[in-house]
Amino acid sequence: MQRHALHDDERFAFPRALAGSGIRESLSESYSTSTWGKIVDALLEFVTKFAAQLQSPTLAFLLGGILIAALGSRLEIPESIYKFVVFMLLMRVGLEGGMSIREANVADMLLPAFFAVLIGCGIVLIGRFTLALLPSVRTEDGIATAGLFGAVSGSTLAAAIVVMESDGIAYEHWAPALYPFMDIPALVMAIVLASLYMKRKAGSGEKVRIWPIVKESLQGSALSALLLGIALGLVTRPEKVFEGFYDPLFRGLLSVLMLVMGMEAYARLHELKRVAHWYVVYAAIAPIVHGLLAFGLGYIAHVLVGFSPGGVVLLAVIAGSSSDISGPPTLRAGIPTANPSAYVGASTSVGTPVAIAIGIPLYIGLAQAVFGI
Amino acid sequence: MQRHALHDDERFAFPRALAGSGIRESLSESYSTSTWGKIVDALLEFVTKFAAQLQSPTLAFLLGGILIAALGSRLEIPESIYKFVVFMLLMRVGLEGGMSIREANVADMLLPAFFAVLIGCGIVLIGRFTLALLPSVRTEDGIATAGLFGAVSGSTLAAAIVVMESDGIAYEHWAPALYPFMDIPALVMAIVLASLYMKRKAGSGEKVRIWPIVKESLQGSALSALLLGIALGLVTRPEKVFEGFYDPLFRGLLSVLMLVMGMEAYARLHELKRVAHWYVVYAAIAPIVHGLLAFGLGYIAHVLVGFSPGGVVLLAVIAGSSSDISGPPTLRAGIPTANPSAYVGASTSVGTPVAIAIGIPLYIGLAQAVFGI
Amino acid sequence: MQRHALHDDERFAFPRALAGSGIRESLSESYSTSTWGKIVDALLEFVTKFAAQLQSPTLAFLLGGILIAALGSRLEIPESIYKFVVFMLLMRVGLEGGMSIREANVADMLLPAFFAVLIGCGIVLIGRFTLALLPSVRTEDGIATAGLFGAVSGSTLAAAIVVMESDGIAYEHWAPALYPFMDIPALVMAIVLASLYMKRKAGSGEKVRIWPIVKESLQGSALSALLLGIALGLVTRPEKVFEGFYDPLFRGLLSVLMLVMGMEAYARLHELKRVAHWYVVYAAIAPIVHGLLAFGLGYIAHVLVGFSPGGVVLLAVIAGSSSDISGPPTLRAGIPTANPSAYVGASTSVGTPVAIAIGIPLYIGLAQAVFGI
Repeated sequence: MQRHALHDDERFAFPRALAGSGIRESLSESYSTSTWGKIVDALLEFVTKFAAQLQSPTLAFLLGGILIAALGSRLEIPESIYKFVVFMLLMRVGLEGGMSIREANVADMLLPAFFAVLIGCGIVLIGRFTLALLPSVRTEDGIATAGLFGAVSGSTLAAAIVVMESDGIAYEHWAPALYPFMDIPALVMAIVLASLYMKRKAGSGEKVRIWPIVKESLQGSALSALLLGIALGLVTRPEKVFEGFYDPLFRGLLSVLMLVMGMEAYARLHELKRVAHWYVVYAAIAPIVHGLLAFGLGYIAHVLVGFSPGGVVLLAVIAGSSSDISGPPTLRAGIPTANPSAYVGASTSVGTPVAIAIGIPLYIGLAQAVFGI
Repeated sequence: MQRHALHDDERFAFPRALAGSGIRESLSESYSTSTWGKIVDALLEFVTKFAAQLQSPTLAFLLGGILIAALGSRLEIPESIYKFVVFMLLMRVGLEGGMSIREANVADMLLPAFFAVLIGCGIVLIGRFTLALLPSVRTEDGIATAGLFGAVSGSTLAAAIVVMESDGIAYEHWAPALYPFMDIPALVMAIVLASLYMKRKAGSGEKVRIWPIVKESLQGSALSALLLGIALGLVTRPEKVFEGFYDPLFRGLLSVLMLVMGMEAYARLHELKRVAHWYVVYAAIAPIVHGLLAFGLGYIAHVLVGFSPGGVVLLAVIAGSSSDISGPPTLRAGIPTANPSAYVGASTSVGTPVAIAIGIPLYIGLAQAVFGI
Repeated sequence: MQRHALHDDERFAFPRALAGSGIRESLSESYSTSTWGKIVDALLEFVTKFAAQLQSPTLAFLLGGILIAALGSRLEIPESIYKFVVFMLLMRVGLEGGMSIREANVADMLLPAFFAVLIGCGIVLIGRFTLALLPSVRTEDGIATAGLFGAVSGSTLAAAIVVMESDGIAYEHWAPALYPFMDIPALVMAIVLASLYMKRKAGSGEKVRIWPIVKESLQGSALSALLLGIALGLVTRPEKVFEGFYDPLFRGLLSVLMLVMGMEAYARLHELKRVAHWYVVYAAIAPIVHGLLAFGLGYIAHVLVGFSPGGVVLLAVIAGSSSDISGPPTLRAGIPTANPSAYVGASTSVGTPVAIAIGIPLYIGLAQAVFGI
């Protein structure tokens, strides 16, 4: 299944020219043996990557959506189209995941899956002891926001897959199946922490039940579509419908989704204005911190069990993303006292654009510098 | 138009291995000349076909839909997408039908069309004198249910077309145009029988008018789309838009529709619980009985006018299907005292899954045994 | 980018046969040197073109929509699908426009753009001094109707593009970018004229502000999508998503849109009955008059700056079209006292069908006669 061969992509004509220019060559040459050199390399890769990304349809449609919303356009992609597009993207990612798990060595998946759980819980704990302790941030709101940033965005994942396929970066096709291993623990952890906090505050002795939260997460529309796709890819033979329908429409439907997310990001901005500025700071920094953390753990998995460089990038993207579809309803049910304006605004308006526009090219640039791909 | 050449389909790798195994060979050899042998052959074909079907996307998405609905998933394919998918499928089936009627010998269609009318009326009469006479079944409800099982399901028809094209089974492309010849007489017959029954009960002398029922049926969304497609295929040149749009999206959109129908089947189950258990029994048995009856008449048409084996299978599928889109509103208007929970529940929750999961592989297996295709 | 090579299109088998027949040959031969001969040629081209058009999917779906609506079909293409289809079509037209402006000589666009502005204003002035002065036509209603006929229809434009690509008629791919240069001035002109008229009537001294009208137009959903597409095509590299998604779906989605527009045209007819018959007369004649006027100006641009014959046809199509999506809300806000039944009914029920069914083949036939393409 050589679907991701490196093909000449005119989209990158400009950055490639830059990459081939003397400045970069000489810089990277002189540092190439040192760790420091690797970091410079990564940064240069990121800058060229970022410039290229600005021209890529994925980011361009996202920014286009923000722009036309800011200009007051009455263009509207109906809610039902949006829901269907999300279904189509996650079904496609799931089907491919399922088909490749069929052929994969399940043992290879254990360490990355364990790291995904670790990152999911870790992100929430970090948020609990940074954002949620800040002045003018209500503790429940801070915990809920950390939970949403620990949870995963299917759209960001889909955007990364399209960019990596355009760039010819190979990855384990089961890597998107790491999604629930990070998403569910993060949401559970956030709801548990919030309950503990509120109980301590109220002095009540109610127990937090984990299973309902897990179930609620699994029943969310995005995770349902992904898991159903994985199951169908695993136990049936959906190759034809995958190759003739879900896969060819993937890139185009993603452009539509990015447009919707851009418009949504702008529309939610005003909600952010009502809450403390710390949310903006957190939402701008956290995706990158989480992504780099995951990149580090992914690197360990690369050394220990041969997790591919592309897989490391996807793990970082998943960690850097913040949930936009399934997470909010689960949190609303699990932490009813938290203010959705805080966590939804932070995630949709700042977190997701940062995760896509800065995160994806950053991790790819880093992977190219570190792994020499 | 060699669109249905038999191509190697890895989906059937498992059953083909089974088909090639010694057990089946020796069994079919020893019986191959007797009628009994043919039945054994048909059953074996059905079993292998059914095992294969479980892996086919069509059935897998249907079962997947039932499964996630049972697990309480919040995944939702919006109503507007569902309506559009149905339109796309029936327009595609209609266009192909119209284009092939252009080149067909209209005389060839007469006997199959006559048989379709016969089956449509026959199914309702059978239901009238079995289901509707059972204790704890209200007569109007029984007649309405029989009417719905006599009417035709566009989705089941589309599912059969995809399976037959995957298997390389040729059929007259005008065969789907038999749809209205069975659908309308069945609905008319049901409404007439119900009116006669209620008049006798009430002693009133109102006359039943046939034309409004026919018109109501023809104006239904599914039949409108099919007939418009046939008309456009017949009098215009839609080849390009057919080959570039309606046909390539057919298989994929069907997978979406199957998912919706699975979810719907589960959601309607609770309606069935409110009515007599006889509906479940009827809904499970009737599709197969009707399909086999139609297979028999189709066989006669094969002998008399050379109706193709694939055409016989489609006639059986059409007869075995029960209406899910257009039928219910027509019945609701025509037999207002009948309980929709009974007929819609029986058709959507049991009839359609049986017609697709058991009916389609059964008739194909039977055709392979009888016609040696 | 040789996307529009002339390919053998079986759709035109009949008219080509006619074109090759002796009658036409001898007629056109004897007149071929005179201006009169050219007109006869154009008319003959139009008749053959029109006969072909009746078989083309674009027109067939439009007429099919009118037909099934007239027959009372309950078929429904949901509103959300309609909105998304319009978005997809205009995004595709915009992307191609943007990508070709990148490579175009901007100076070439100046004269056609100036003519587009001229035509937009001219159409409204013509309407102001014909339709709006007729007895039983309220002046505001007449001006608003003229404004809507000066404004542009994205669907008519898309229909013309599909027909021209089928016929292998080349055009400047930036030509669709002339849309706003005609659309906005027409709407502004109409609202200004209506305000002047009402002020004179009321004797008040309020000033008409132009910018809010321009802004309102630019923010409309159709123009937003088109301009966003142009911007993305101009500054990013959307080739892959264009070639893999927006372009292949173009023709098929247009057939869906035509069906919706046909159904809509029939549904709006009853609104026309409530207003003066002059609207029907205007709506039937104006599209052709406007289109021929634009054809003349386009011819001047052809002579002066080498505007292509295909570009001239598109300019005529844009001029002959009347707005159906973005125009009405702008007019409703700008001329609140005008009766939407008059202008929407005239445009949707008569203007658009005439612009598509008669206008497009007429201008193509004319171009073939005049330019010998």
